[in-house]
Amino acid sequence: MEKFDIHILGCGSATPTTKHWPACQVLDIRGKLYMIDCGEGCQYNYRRSRLNFSRLRAVFISHLHGDHCFGLPGLISSMSLLGRTGILEIYGPEGIREYMDSFMKLFGARLAFEIEVHTIDCSASRLIYEDPSVKISSLPLKHRIECAGFLVEEKSKSLHLDKESCDFFQIPITAYKQILRGEDFVTETGETISNSRLTKKGCPPRKYAYCSDTAYRPALVPLIQEVTLLYHEATFRQSDLSRARETYHSTAAQAAMIAKEANVKRLLIGHYSARYPNEEGLLEEAKNIFPETIAAQENQIIRL
Amino acid sequence: MEKFDIHILGCGSATPTTKHWPACQVLDIRGKLYMIDCGEGCQYNYRRSRLNFSRLRAVFISHLHGDHCFGLPGLISSMSLLGRTGILEIYGPEGIREYMDSFMKLFGARLAFEIEVHTIDCSASRLIYEDPSVKISSLPLKHRIECAGFLVEEKSKSLHLDKESCDFFQIPITAYKQILRGEDFVTETGETISNSRLTKKGCPPRKYAYCSDTAYRPALVPLIQEVTLLYHEATFRQSDLSRARETYHSTAAQAAMIAKEANVKRLLIGHYSARYPNEEGLLEEAKNIFPETIAAQENQIIRL
Repeated sequence: MEKFDIHILGCGSATPTTKHWPACQVLDIRGKLYMIDCGEGCQYNYRRSRLNFSRLRAVFISHLHGDHCFGLPGLISSMSLLGRTGILEIYGPEGIREYMDSFMKLFGARLAFEIEVHTIDCSASRLIYEDPSVKISSLPLKHRIECAGFLVEEKSKSLHLDKESCDFFQIPITAYKQILRGEDFVTETGETISNSRLTKKGCPPRKYAYCSDTAYRPALVPLIQEVTLLYHEATFRQSDLSRARETYHSTAAQAAMIAKEANVKRLLIGHYSARYPNEEGLLEEAKNIFPETIAAQENQIIRL
Repeated sequence: MEKFDIHILGCGSATPTTKHWPACQVLDIRGKLYMIDCGEGCQYNYRRSRLNFSRLRAVFISHLHGDHCFGLPGLISSMSLLGRTGILEIYGPEGIREYMDSFMKLFGARLAFEIEVHTIDCSASRLIYEDPSVKISSLPLKHRIECAGFLVEEKSKSLHLDKESCDFFQIPITAYKQILRGEDFVTETGETISNSRLTKKGCPPRKYAYCSDTAYRPALVPLIQEVTLLYHEATFRQSDLSRARETYHSTAAQAAMIAKEANVKRLLIGHYSARYPNEEGLLEEAKNIFPETIAAQENQIIRL
């Protein structure tokens, strides 16, 4: 199976602790890298994880709170110093362009590569990025300011050639393209070999959904139905529900309810409040509702 | 002796390494804190060093290169979240106001305290800050962009009362003030007791000079004469002198020559290039010229 890894570079929340880093994840999909959120200092964990700066295609910023974007200026400057030349695409809500423009004006004079900024409409789910490996759509979250989640879907071929079978029927290479499109093959003698004998069904495409920061939002459920992995913020415990409501965050129980309703394969929780000495209580609370839950930790790699 | 400590929070240069953090120091002078430079992530080392956010009076930025100022937005945001209310003063070269204005516009809506920005004239040495404990002056450095060093002088009383002697001569408490001003005391019977019998000389005020980033600049020598500690950048070894010249940085040997010429008590080197596996070569090079040299390391505290 082709690579689809999630690298957790930071899974804390806004108040700094000596245990967690602010939000940052890097997806490695078939060797191409995509960053989601870029908290201060994430470039250091990026290097510790031995991820390659030149392979980073795009950065997706969920919202313009510091713990999700203060790492951008340093990341960009370091990539430039280290010799990156390829265009970097940056996606984020309204304001992202102004943030990048003011950075470029004060610090961008010697930048070795171009930055292409795209503003996301956070009011609905829309396709925002596409390349031969993935499709990325925004998810409308509910936070104090405009905020988008992300649904990352790998593009997988629906049909693969059954090489053995093609060799057996002596199918010429020039016909492979039409067979991969789903067509039958007709031999010189007029015999029809049905497509299903020459091909195998591909794996269903894997999907990753990132939902942070957000208040409890059941409207997300149909948009993330049956994803392979759901990252959902779980800032608070249910005992701090009133605080979660005030700050437009979710509890671990609410994250688990969303996972259960959406019938996802696995749930990954993070964005832990600094008030808890550890994540055990949050993890237990989520597992009681959705057993297939894991708690994010820095430098963890989750393979889909 | 009253406290005058230098906390090293970062002593690397622009290219990130897994060993060093970008430039940041905190001076603890009689319990008041003053930050010099504010590289990305310095708030984390600040917390690790158990320094108190509320006691931070002012931040002095030498120049607007990212490795000296990208930590400001995160530091300010975290201090606000953690309940700081006192005004924070920020000093920096031309551009510092625009940097802070764009930060405030995008991220400052809920900031719990005021920021007072002061622009430094980097062309000459000027007194830029004063409170009952210290005087801080700028030092004109020579870098690719406008850049200031800082000379930090404690304010110490030049005279202390000799309590035993005052008791012996039965000096009334009401006369202490005039004696501390240097006046003699005349008794009721007309006898003059000379000031030198009633007072002791205070310690000479301690001085700390911070010179980073800068090319070799002998014009600094008269401005930092006989300081207690000189921090001077030593980005390169003498074997990389041409690279030092190109980038307006200094070699360890050049830092040591400045220290020697200025007859300082001790030299502290830092701002190490990422190209060297360790600091031994830089330290040795400096010590050959100026033996009283130490190499900065993160989380080190130097007591003056």
